[in-house]
Amino acid sequence: MTTRTEDASADVGGAANSARSAATRDRILAVAEQLFAEHGVFAVSNRQVSEAAGQGNNAAVGYHFGTKTDLVRAIVNKHSQQVEKKRGELLCEIEGSTNVRDWISCLVRASTDHYAEMGGPTWYARFSAQILTDPVLRKIVYDEVLASPTLQETLRGLSDCLADMPMSVRRARADIGRNAIVHMFAERERTLAEEGPDAVTSWEDFTTDLVDALVGLWTAPISR
Amino acid sequence: MTTRTEDASADVGGAANSARSAATRDRILAVAEQLFAEHGVFAVSNRQVSEAAGQGNNAAVGYHFGTKTDLVRAIVNKHSQQVEKKRGELLCEIEGSTNVRDWISCLVRASTDHYAEMGGPTWYARFSAQILTDPVLRKIVYDEVLASPTLQETLRGLSDCLADMPMSVRRARADIGRNAIVHMFAERERTLAEEGPDAVTSWEDFTTDLVDALVGLWTAPISR
Repeated sequence: MTTRTEDASADVGGAANSARSAATRDRILAVAEQLFAEHGVFAVSNRQVSEAAGQGNNAAVGYHFGTKTDLVRAIVNKHSQQVEKKRGELLCEIEGSTNVRDWISCLVRASTDHYAEMGGPTWYARFSAQILTDPVLRKIVYDEVLASPTLQETLRGLSDCLADMPMSVRRARADIGRNAIVHMFAERERTLAEEGPDAVTSWEDFTTDLVDALVGLWTAPISR
Repeated sequence: MTTRTEDASADVGGAANSARSAATRDRILAVAEQLFAEHGVFAVSNRQVSEAAGQGNNAAVGYHFGTKTDLVRAIVNKHSQQVEKKRGELLCEIEGSTNVRDWISCLVRASTDHYAEMGGPTWYARFSAQILTDPVLRKIVYDEVLASPTLQETLRGLSDCLADMPMSVRRARADIGRNAIVHMFAERERTLAEEGPDAVTSWEDFTTDLVDALVGLWTAPISR
């Protein structure tokens, strides 16, 4: 039988272990994201991630996450939750709007706000662009991201503004628009990393330019 | 001293060897392109490519091409030369045009015509999309592709139609447009491979839809 004091001290020990474990997981996620962005998701091994995260145990990624795919999914989930929250807030502002620009702004700004808030150098955009083009990872990760309730709601809002558009044209423009958003954030992040802050526009101008272009894309006359 | 007959027979032997070597190289390029598209450029080893190309020697890729990067560059060069030729022909048709749509059509059709001509299943679009997002390969391969004389001439023609556009907006739209073209071909190729021919539009409609969207993108009003 344990005393009350022993119980409490065991709890404190458990909480400390759990906090250490959470800190280690966060550290691994951050290091992995940077290494993947800079060197490629497949060029970097789980062992290299573990070492760069300062883990004496080279199998730390395996212990805390599992496979490379599990690690990739954890990085995506971390960011998705934050983008999801932002998009939810933005959606409240435009409920019922019939203006194409409102819905496109919502799509773009959910990400812009997330990146702007992270501040400093980021790596997630270059990482995301790789996931989106990898034949295996895209299937695993991408469906989860597309299933986001707020993303679906935003796409429905946009779709309702363009009720006369044939389905195949709508699908093509959605594909172009989605790719444009992911890859434009990656281009900006890459340019910032390689050429410095003078080589990129402000987040405000970046958002305006991207929204202008996407509104043009979505509302372009249809030839066929 | 060798006789004339010996010389000639040595030549024939040399030519046969050289033809065999060229056939092996072609076979490796085709197999690598498919494996990379389906499983990922970094998930597939040079040894796996050599084996899948039916080479008894597992080091065949190394012998014929060198590193993974050399192999990737050879695949890109093979296609680039063909696209370059098509774009040159298309450029002749629109020399001096001041119509944005003409220049955008030229950009898109150079690729559409190349894919349509290859016929059957293709893999190059999914492969290209991966290269474009990989942090290391994009630097090595992409600069070569962008340096294409006919590509530069087409971009100049498009640029001349939009002389009043601020440089930063022009750069953003060029980035979106370039990414849209690469990734839309990859999306179509992937859909065709996974869902069959009924799931994609014809090359003609695909081209029209993509050109419509890109004209909208390039000519969209500028807010700032």
